[in-house]
Amino acid sequence: MASMSAVLSKSPFLSQPLSKSPSSDLPFSAATVSFPSKSHRRGGVIRAGLISPDGGKLVELVVSEPRRREKKHEAAELPRVELTSIDVQWMHVLSEGWASPLGGFMRESEFLQTLHFNSLRLDDGSVVNMSVPIVLAIDDEQKASIGESKRVALVGSDGNPVAILSDIEIYKHPKEERIARTWGTTAPGLPYVEEAITNAGNWLIGGDLEVLEPVKYNDGLDRFRLSPAELRKELEKRGADAVFAFQLRNPVHNGHALLMTDTRRRLLEMGYKNPILLLHPLGGYTKADDVPLSWRMKQHEKVLEDGVLDPETTVVSIFPSPMHYAGPTEVQWHAKARINAGANFYIVGRDPAGMGHPVEKRDLYDADHGKKVLSMAPGLERLNILPFRVAAYDKTQGKMAFFDPSRPQDFLFISGTKVNSLLPNTNLTLLHFSWFTYKIILSDAHIGQEQRKPSRWIHVPRWMASSC
Amino acid sequence: MASMSAVLSKSPFLSQPLSKSPSSDLPFSAATVSFPSKSHRRGGVIRAGLISPDGGKLVELVVSEPRRREKKHEAAELPRVELTSIDVQWMHVLSEGWASPLGGFMRESEFLQTLHFNSLRLDDGSVVNMSVPIVLAIDDEQKASIGESKRVALVGSDGNPVAILSDIEIYKHPKEERIARTWGTTAPGLPYVEEAITNAGNWLIGGDLEVLEPVKYNDGLDRFRLSPAELRKELEKRGADAVFAFQLRNPVHNGHALLMTDTRRRLLEMGYKNPILLLHPLGGYTKADDVPLSWRMKQHEKVLEDGVLDPETTVVSIFPSPMHYAGPTEVQWHAKARINAGANFYIVGRDPAGMGHPVEKRDLYDADHGKKVLSMAPGLERLNILPFRVAAYDKTQGKMAFFDPSRPQDFLFISGTKVNSLLPNTNLTLLHFSWFTYKIILSDAHIGQEQRKPSRWIHVPRWMASSC
Repeated sequence: MASMSAVLSKSPFLSQPLSKSPSSDLPFSAATVSFPSKSHRRGGVIRAGLISPDGGKLVELVVSEPRRREKKHEAAELPRVELTSIDVQWMHVLSEGWASPLGGFMRESEFLQTLHFNSLRLDDGSVVNMSVPIVLAIDDEQKASIGESKRVALVGSDGNPVAILSDIEIYKHPKEERIARTWGTTAPGLPYVEEAITNAGNWLIGGDLEVLEPVKYNDGLDRFRLSPAELRKELEKRGADAVFAFQLRNPVHNGHALLMTDTRRRLLEMGYKNPILLLHPLGGYTKADDVPLSWRMKQHEKVLEDGVLDPETTVVSIFPSPMHYAGPTEVQWHAKARINAGANFYIVGRDPAGMGHPVEKRDLYDADHGKKVLSMAPGLERLNILPFRVAAYDKTQGKMAFFDPSRPQDFLFISGTKVNSLLPNTNLTLLHFSWFTYKIILSDAHIGQEQRKPSRWIHVPRWMASSC
Repeated sequence: MASMSAVLSKSPFLSQPLSKSPSSDLPFSAATVSFPSKSHRRGGVIRAGLISPDGGKLVELVVSEPRRREKKHEAAELPRVELTSIDVQWMHVLSEGWASPLGGFMRESEFLQTLHFNSLRLDDGSVVNMSVPIVLAIDDEQKASIGESKRVALVGSDGNPVAILSDIEIYKHPKEERIARTWGTTAPGLPYVEEAITNAGNWLIGGDLEVLEPVKYNDGLDRFRLSPAELRKELEKRGADAVFAFQLRNPVHNGHALLMTDTRRRLLEMGYKNPILLLHPLGGYTKADDVPLSWRMKQHEKVLEDGVLDPETTVVSIFPSPMHYAGPTEVQWHAKARINAGANFYIVGRDPAGMGHPVEKRDLYDADHGKKVLSMAPGLERLNILPFRVAAYDKTQGKMAFFDPSRPQDFLFISGTKVNSLLPNTNLTLLHFSWFTYKIILSDAHIGQEQRKPSRWIHVPRWMASSC
């Protein structure tokens, strides 16, 4: 993985000095579903400096080194709440400020605002986006063991305290309502629900979080888990004057690659001197039939090694959040967290964070709702929403290109059916770690829903993998 | 009903001249779940004039008299969409501006914002509350008959056009998602869902509404159906310097009466000279076991006749909205609509707009969520939320009083069980049209959930009905 490490540590020429002003967000207007027009910047100077975090200040909840010893002693004396692996991922998310200004697992007022408004109103009356509940469930027994204590220790799977939650509030866990309002369905078979909610306790515990040590997974990938603060440092070091984030939970395919390089080209045309791509695979819980993180990271590495994406202008890092598969609700979380990491442009695809309906034969969400909801979401007005353009193989050019609806006959869409017809062995199960390895689920507008639940890996023909 | 008509036409002494400034909203800070403290107004002058409607201007969508003939001719030529009785109620709601600034049945962007954010962002960036979808469903056949037309006529049950919908947008009706996000459950048995959604068409049609004539029901109650504009006129005529709204869908009981008179007393203590109560029963669709509107209106009349509420400072009018029974989501709608009618104080009870879970043996909503959600809702910051205080029969005073938790033994709660034990005939089904007629479902904190689904009417003992 040498090339990826290199990406993260490279420091290209700073095209212009960075202003450190915290208020120097780029001067775009409210969220848009189209590319911001050049006129916005005509005659103006592009201000440098990254977009400010939600709430104005990046929350960082890891106890500083000198105080760890003392805090660990404190934690040892407190009632204990054991964390699941998903709880630990959320603790990680909170500890690094991805959910800034949230300072811990949600109390009821934050939980209710999230469920009903997908946003939180701050003391100064301003609003930040917060669409997915970040909550910690406990059962009756744990609640009883906490008693009247106002603080608890959060404990990892090895039985050791990893955090302290203070000024706690325990309130009812309305599971059905949480599920209905977050997913827009209560149908059985939602992966996150089955993994983390159905069997969770009937109470939620919120409070102020202090994490005793930076969260590490010791899986060989920790060096890719840059915190928002570390990403901001890296982006500033590179002199980014625009940061465009691409969330993904699957391998990159050639359509994605075209989109990312094209986005950079257009940002340059708009007058940005140094747009940086934050290629940001999701690293927390994903459902069983998604590609595991370690494989995806190897694939991303290949994409850079092969020069499909430029390492000089690309930062690859892992976003530690678990995946809800909650479509329009969740895409807001994905976007909001990237603001905190310094991104002011967010690429949104067809049916973001979507999946097939767990019971009915249809997609769970309307494919366009994600980008529509994102473009109207409270607290995301500062973020420029870049809708995903559909890419296909242009037979006239012999390469991947954006689909031109005026000449549909010239395009070959990447479809599972098409791939199957091209492959001699449709039962191929071998996963190739090259960047052109492809899973049918990597669909955009061009894959029909009958192909949305793949059961196997396939190796795609060369034309899909050809460099754009 | 002479006394009620009298209430509506009386013009008491104007305690102070009214300012007509549209920006003269009362100077309270953001929504609060406690009574605004006196300190807010210390040294200040109470500004007169009613709270301004959402969006700054009251929407009125009834075609003016001179243009009706022409519009009716236009309507006769358009594709037709037949309205259900609930559709007509929503059309009525829209036509009078209860949903200001909404100008017609929702297009998709408004529908999505309502589902996800319970609010709408206006062109100027400001936000108004909008928690309940006001949508019009059509089926495949109706959609086909509309074809490429950009306008349709809305047609009443008698086959005559009642409105025109222009610049229409037809989009999918995601029923499951709508239900889940509005009610927080998809359990079968939700009254509004069964009445108006389950069998509705698979498409929604939004657009700009023009209603050809003021909506009338010819049920003897139309004179009580004052529009927001008429209510504002009446409230101004009375010189109201504070308007406190009380939404109800059931007969008033003595606890309510105590609350309303006490609220007025406290507003006077705060320095208001002429607080007016808007006693505002909901007049649209209600579930089968709720008390019918005509009976409720007779009961409200009695309340005034008997002097329990003061006709000089009370306006009784009908709120034409259908009832969703969607708890914390719906209570926002109830409150927001009253802003448009001029109310700047809103009384909220336990479990507002709630009901028993249709399948499980519990209340559908946490009894406190309604007031909590209301106090945090986007677009309702200007409204003062007054939480309902629990009233009970104080044995030491021999009358209804606010419950004092320091001496619980002195209070008798109005409970179905208690009433049953006091009554010789628990199968009494006669409804008495006196103001002390009471239905067990008129519960606040003091009725356990096992009594929340009454099947009959009862006549309560005198002590519950005694004047407070």
